[in-house]
Amino acid sequence: MWVQDAWYVAAWTHEIEPGRIHARTIIDQPLALYRTTDGAVVAFEDRCCHRFAPLSLGRLEGDDLRCMYHGLKFAPDGRCIEIPGQKLIPQSACVRRYPVAVVGSWVWIWMGDTAAADATSIPSSLALDDPAYRLMASHLDYAAHYLLIDDNLLDLSHLSFAHEKTLGLDMPQWADQRPHVVPLERGLRFQRWLANHPTRGFMRKLGERVDVWNSYDFVFPGIFLQRTTFHPQGTAERSGGREPEGEPPFYRVDEQAVTPISARASRYFYAAGARRDDIDPGKLERLFGVTQLAFNEDKTLIEAQQKTIDLDPTRPMLGTSLDAGPTRFRKLVESLQR
Amino acid sequence: MWVQDAWYVAAWTHEIEPGRIHARTIIDQPLALYRTTDGAVVAFEDRCCHRFAPLSLGRLEGDDLRCMYHGLKFAPDGRCIEIPGQKLIPQSACVRRYPVAVVGSWVWIWMGDTAAADATSIPSSLALDDPAYRLMASHLDYAAHYLLIDDNLLDLSHLSFAHEKTLGLDMPQWADQRPHVVPLERGLRFQRWLANHPTRGFMRKLGERVDVWNSYDFVFPGIFLQRTTFHPQGTAERSGGREPEGEPPFYRVDEQAVTPISARASRYFYAAGARRDDIDPGKLERLFGVTQLAFNEDKTLIEAQQKTIDLDPTRPMLGTSLDAGPTRFRKLVESLQR
Amino acid sequence: MWVQDAWYVAAWTHEIEPGRIHARTIIDQPLALYRTTDGAVVAFEDRCCHRFAPLSLGRLEGDDLRCMYHGLKFAPDGRCIEIPGQKLIPQSACVRRYPVAVVGSWVWIWMGDTAAADATSIPSSLALDDPAYRLMASHLDYAAHYLLIDDNLLDLSHLSFAHEKTLGLDMPQWADQRPHVVPLERGLRFQRWLANHPTRGFMRKLGERVDVWNSYDFVFPGIFLQRTTFHPQGTAERSGGREPEGEPPFYRVDEQAVTPISARASRYFYAAGARRDDIDPGKLERLFGVTQLAFNEDKTLIEAQQKTIDLDPTRPMLGTSLDAGPTRFRKLVESLQR
Repeated sequence: MWVQDAWYVAAWTHEIEPGRIHARTIIDQPLALYRTTDGAVVAFEDRCCHRFAPLSLGRLEGDDLRCMYHGLKFAPDGRCIEIPGQKLIPQSACVRRYPVAVVGSWVWIWMGDTAAADATSIPSSLALDDPAYRLMASHLDYAAHYLLIDDNLLDLSHLSFAHEKTLGLDMPQWADQRPHVVPLERGLRFQRWLANHPTRGFMRKLGERVDVWNSYDFVFPGIFLQRTTFHPQGTAERSGGREPEGEPPFYRVDEQAVTPISARASRYFYAAGARRDDIDPGKLERLFGVTQLAFNEDKTLIEAQQKTIDLDPTRPMLGTSLDAGPTRFRKLVESLQR
Repeated sequence: MWVQDAWYVAAWTHEIEPGRIHARTIIDQPLALYRTTDGAVVAFEDRCCHRFAPLSLGRLEGDDLRCMYHGLKFAPDGRCIEIPGQKLIPQSACVRRYPVAVVGSWVWIWMGDTAAADATSIPSSLALDDPAYRLMASHLDYAAHYLLIDDNLLDLSHLSFAHEKTLGLDMPQWADQRPHVVPLERGLRFQRWLANHPTRGFMRKLGERVDVWNSYDFVFPGIFLQRTTFHPQGTAERSGGREPEGEPPFYRVDEQAVTPISARASRYFYAAGARRDDIDPGKLERLFGVTQLAFNEDKTLIEAQQKTIDLDPTRPMLGTSLDAGPTRFRKLVESLQR
Repeated sequence: MWVQDAWYVAAWTHEIEPGRIHARTIIDQPLALYRTTDGAVVAFEDRCCHRFAPLSLGRLEGDDLRCMYHGLKFAPDGRCIEIPGQKLIPQSACVRRYPVAVVGSWVWIWMGDTAAADATSIPSSLALDDPAYRLMASHLDYAAHYLLIDDNLLDLSHLSFAHEKTLGLDMPQWADQRPHVVPLERGLRFQRWLANHPTRGFMRKLGERVDVWNSYDFVFPGIFLQRTTFHPQGTAERSGGREPEGEPPFYRVDEQAVTPISARASRYFYAAGARRDDIDPGKLERLFGVTQLAFNEDKTLIEAQQKTIDLDPTRPMLGTSLDAGPTRFRKLVESLQR
């Protein structure tokens, strides 16, 4: 069911504190994460090989981790280096260690065959401390299958409806202005103009209406990197449907990662912000607060959708032309599952 | 397992407020209920045909309902009348609409084949605003199969035991005075005299003991309409076991409806009161308060009974002569399930 | 799956109060326990034979128990002696009665074939009011299979690790000093010396280090009776590994019983204390308080271990030489299951 051979986001890097062992679960596999003294992140299976006590309840001893049930001790490479009361340590005494990479501000874990782990295949993302931007970050837990959250991000026509109270977007536009979709390695790129879009809040200073250029990449399992730039009216028409040239007066960025925990649990990591010169910390807090409200609206809808699906799991959905993105992505996921 | 072809009580009419969409579940089917501008109640399947978001999280637009995930809009007959970003609306774009009838003070929903819906087959009940009576109403949710609640109502011998602390009924009488049972269309009628029954509370003004005539109809799936009249001692004997003639000094009414939600969840609607001239609002509140205490005693017992049954679901029960009502009704339910 | 033919601890005797009916569950069988007027404990199946209402919601009438749903009444031998509204009581109208014995301070229930119940086979234990000791007692509920708790008690090497913060035991000793293990009827005896063990708390008066003799019997399903005596340094060596002679300056006792409730629920009864002259009530409270903290550490670990096992129930554990006790006991349990 799960795609093993993929990099999954386990945490924001700042969430993995030195001196602590963190329990996480990805695709039904429990993980224990900690930092060695040089700051590198180690990801073990969260299950002592002896009696299956969670290693996340253990103790760090320098770079090693000791299970605090019967005291077996493991080096960062997963080998058992001490069994109390026993001199001989068998070869089989080890815990699975998963490949880890810290790229951007995320801790990525490779859940598949170690030999196949290739950190260069990790999708692009933005570091939270990138000096060009001002960003805030958090995460949200869903009681839903991760592909329902992916569906949501792969069809932004829902913005007008699901978020009418928070984002206050002009209703038909996100549905009417279909994005141009091109394939990426394990993903899709979406780009579109939303011409004459009304402004609100502190964006109002750009005028009552602007032309909005929206572009995002969406890569398996749910890595979303979006930039949305705001331009004077007429820019869309002048650009002939293509990416705008020149500096926009406002440049927003969003990055998100959807991580499957189990069949009905997922973690949603998100950051939002803007180009440093376009926003001050107070406005960023407002922008981020509204964004969080909107994400909670998605959560309410998607968790309810999951329950409704589960009442009758084999019933076919009605396809519409809105579903181009989700449908193409589901096919890609199916191909990865093989 | 469920009987589809039946009218089920979904709500007290006053519970379905204008301008809101109400989520209910009957026999495992999720429903979205709302009123059109003329007050008529519409019952949709609570599942948008597009991506299965619940319609109960949607928005009313006049008489129509818009799903607030991707914006599909449905007319009161269930037809989709708008798909944002798409001109053509396929025939298959619709949600199931269930036949609804408001009869008495209940909203009834026909869960079976629409062509077979016949509002004239709805069982009798009493409107809460019937000028002849003073009534109070509420509902209670059970974590139990609805037939266990039906069993309870089909054998009132439990009154002496389950409610000894609240109703304080004379213990052996409800078991000893077996009711006369006659079949009804999809139900049973129970009638009996309880002679020389002790009185309590404000009924004491009728004397220390009275003759009580108890008569109720019980119709699938669990519609209970009861009148209990109180008479001077000797009336039972003079009536020769038959229904009393003439006006009783006190006339109590009870109506209840048991609605299956799922295999282990049911909703129990109830109203209790008396002939308007026999009771004032203060006494009605006391009568209703005691009634609610007693219903919570039933709930405790029946939910515990459900758990005990579930520990060993195939074990046969011991039949006694108390079970005539429940046994006959279960046979009727079996015949309806075919 | 369960061993039926065994005595299980249902309660501390003081928990079964006169005049009340107590609900307990042992190996998935619900029980209703009460005392007759002479103080004897009766254990019924907690399920009326009529409609399966729990008898624990019933009423005591002298030595008899009445089900308070429809009023069936049962004598202490389980026979039904009254069915309201019915003269004839069929032979089959009875509830299962389980053999009960009060031995030590525990109420024991035989869950198997009544004919095979033999109270002389009940394992040894200590009465809480034994004048030679000062003891305190309580119980703890686990969301785990009882054999995981047994495993814990059958390998005390975990003491150094799981309880480092509470018991502060010298780390390697409990793992390094392997116990001498001998078989018992349905159990195992563990004995060992821990020489030069550091003291703490009020034990410090015995010197900075002592020789500790630890001996316990562990009998199916999880009856643990332990004495731990503290001796001047050198005693272990002088005793040549055998049980010490003469009176120790401090003598601690522990008794525990693990009772399976269901596949993922167990109750853990425990008492701890010391020889009466070795401890005063204030020190006993401190000793017991620390003991309870330690037992909660076990609970955290074992419940987490259960969850980890359940994620992948067929995965084999790594055997170590620590596991001699658990492994031998599991074989014994397997032989009893046949």
